[in-house]
Amino acid sequence: MSTNNAMSTTTTPMTLVDWMKHCQARIEVALTEFLPSPDQVPTHLHEAMRYAVLDGGKRVRPLLVFAAAQLVDADDAGLLRAACAVEMIHAYSLVHDDMPCMDNDALRRGKPTVHVRYGEATALLVGDALQSQAFMILANGANAPARQLRIVQLLAQASGSAGMCGGQAIDLISVGVDLTREQLEHMHQLKTGALLRASVLMGALCGQKPDGQELSHIELAALNRYASAIGLAFQVVDDILDATADSISLGKTAGKDAANHKPTYVSILGLDASRILAEQLRLQAHGALTVFSPSAHSNSTTWRLAQLADFIVQRSA
Amino acid sequence: MSTNNAMSTTTTPMTLVDWMKHCQARIEVALTEFLPSPDQVPTHLHEAMRYAVLDGGKRVRPLLVFAAAQLVDADDAGLLRAACAVEMIHAYSLVHDDMPCMDNDALRRGKPTVHVRYGEATALLVGDALQSQAFMILANGANAPARQLRIVQLLAQASGSAGMCGGQAIDLISVGVDLTREQLEHMHQLKTGALLRASVLMGALCGQKPDGQELSHIELAALNRYASAIGLAFQVVDDILDATADSISLGKTAGKDAANHKPTYVSILGLDASRILAEQLRLQAHGALTVFSPSAHSNSTTWRLAQLADFIVQRSA
Repeated sequence: MSTNNAMSTTTTPMTLVDWMKHCQARIEVALTEFLPSPDQVPTHLHEAMRYAVLDGGKRVRPLLVFAAAQLVDADDAGLLRAACAVEMIHAYSLVHDDMPCMDNDALRRGKPTVHVRYGEATALLVGDALQSQAFMILANGANAPARQLRIVQLLAQASGSAGMCGGQAIDLISVGVDLTREQLEHMHQLKTGALLRASVLMGALCGQKPDGQELSHIELAALNRYASAIGLAFQVVDDILDATADSISLGKTAGKDAANHKPTYVSILGLDASRILAEQLRLQAHGALTVFSPSAHSNSTTWRLAQLADFIVQRSA
Repeated sequence: MSTNNAMSTTTTPMTLVDWMKHCQARIEVALTEFLPSPDQVPTHLHEAMRYAVLDGGKRVRPLLVFAAAQLVDADDAGLLRAACAVEMIHAYSLVHDDMPCMDNDALRRGKPTVHVRYGEATALLVGDALQSQAFMILANGANAPARQLRIVQLLAQASGSAGMCGGQAIDLISVGVDLTREQLEHMHQLKTGALLRASVLMGALCGQKPDGQELSHIELAALNRYASAIGLAFQVVDDILDATADSISLGKTAGKDAANHKPTYVSILGLDASRILAEQLRLQAHGALTVFSPSAHSNSTTWRLAQLADFIVQRSA
């Protein structure tokens, strides 16, 4: 059963939880294959790369790739490459972000962070090599070359100084600074939003529509609006959880934003207004999807995207 | 005058020094354009990225891209993208390599290293963002998509754990260890050799031969042998210079390998045998090029590659 079939053509559709488990299992297998073998030299680097990526995380970005790919006839092999590439970029960013010169965090996904386990120098190389690995996976992709290059371009743009790294750079100089809500939003649109947006668009670019057409500019713009809304919602909810949950539930150090004097939605808007904002963003995400179909029922192509918007806002970890 | 014309079709060919200056000037202009503007937010990250890349270095890898492209009819725009992408990967690796958790070096190309000037966290992000930028430049490339994807694949492979990062990981665990000559060679084939090989192959893949054919497997294998020889020669000469030159001539800290108890060709073979080895490798590189033409005269397509082999071995900094 292919990934997409599992999402769209069974008569009794899987629940979101079952679909997520199904996809996560496939992603884990694919990541295991796409990462360098721990038996290959340099074995300690490869072991550390696998430690950083495997057996952890909700795989939100790969799930978005899969969910967006419901809009098109996507080849499974190409889809898995896109999903694994974006997850490797995400994983590398966590490894570098946790390092002493950045957030200096000792706990991630309930395990010691990579630099705690393998040392700082190896953690630096793990992140660097994972980024290369992500682009190598895409470069060997199965889609038409022009479309595959567009996917490489999307991921590179979202990862670099106009995306994730740029957001982290703004984050760095914002510690102890009173940001406006607009400045905070801009930072997060880059820091976490760019990669989430790329995930949705990469999934949608993994194929053509069932009628053989490419997705239109209007449709891609709608996906972009959807992805911007859930990207921001993701961060708002992260800030809420950081302020309200404990480290064991989160699998990472809770309360560290306040401890580090980092501006958050909770520190700027307060807890109640942050919860209202998250709900507004969830509704915005649903609204953007109406370009494709008037309502997100279980046989619509946008059903899983709509469900993921709900999941991102309603999650507890 | 295009880059390639400057190399191959003028009746009185430029000297190597003039050709290098001509190419270096074009590369500097292209890098200036391909790097994010210092006026764009986040300005401090973009300023630091430009500091890391611009106005420095011999641009050996871009020169190899240009020299190898003499074998084919290459489009100038595609060639410049390949040249700048490989230089950005090289520049990022220097930024990360200089950081306190790696070599902890304060001087590079005669200037303070990026972490000394901008702080460690920014240096980490500079390297990360430069790697993304390299792949973004390639993804927007002007070559046929299938060929361009092959170039992305070459660069990603050469950068990651099977290439540069892998070599650095082996280097890390080799400090204070007695490596055999074979182990040292393997480390350098990854650490510096992989990117130099990629430079040659990327240049050769930027076009087709004048007869409209792709380069054959035999020709690509010969280029690989050429590149392996000069890659190793480059490192042997680096070790010789590190042991014999002063910091001002080198523009970086001299004598640091011995100070760090790092195995080098000089420490394993001695100075005289290292010099003989460098000369043997130079001849091997020339030998590999005879697949293309029996001798490297000024109107042969391999002339600049042959000259660069000489330059790499005979340089004094």
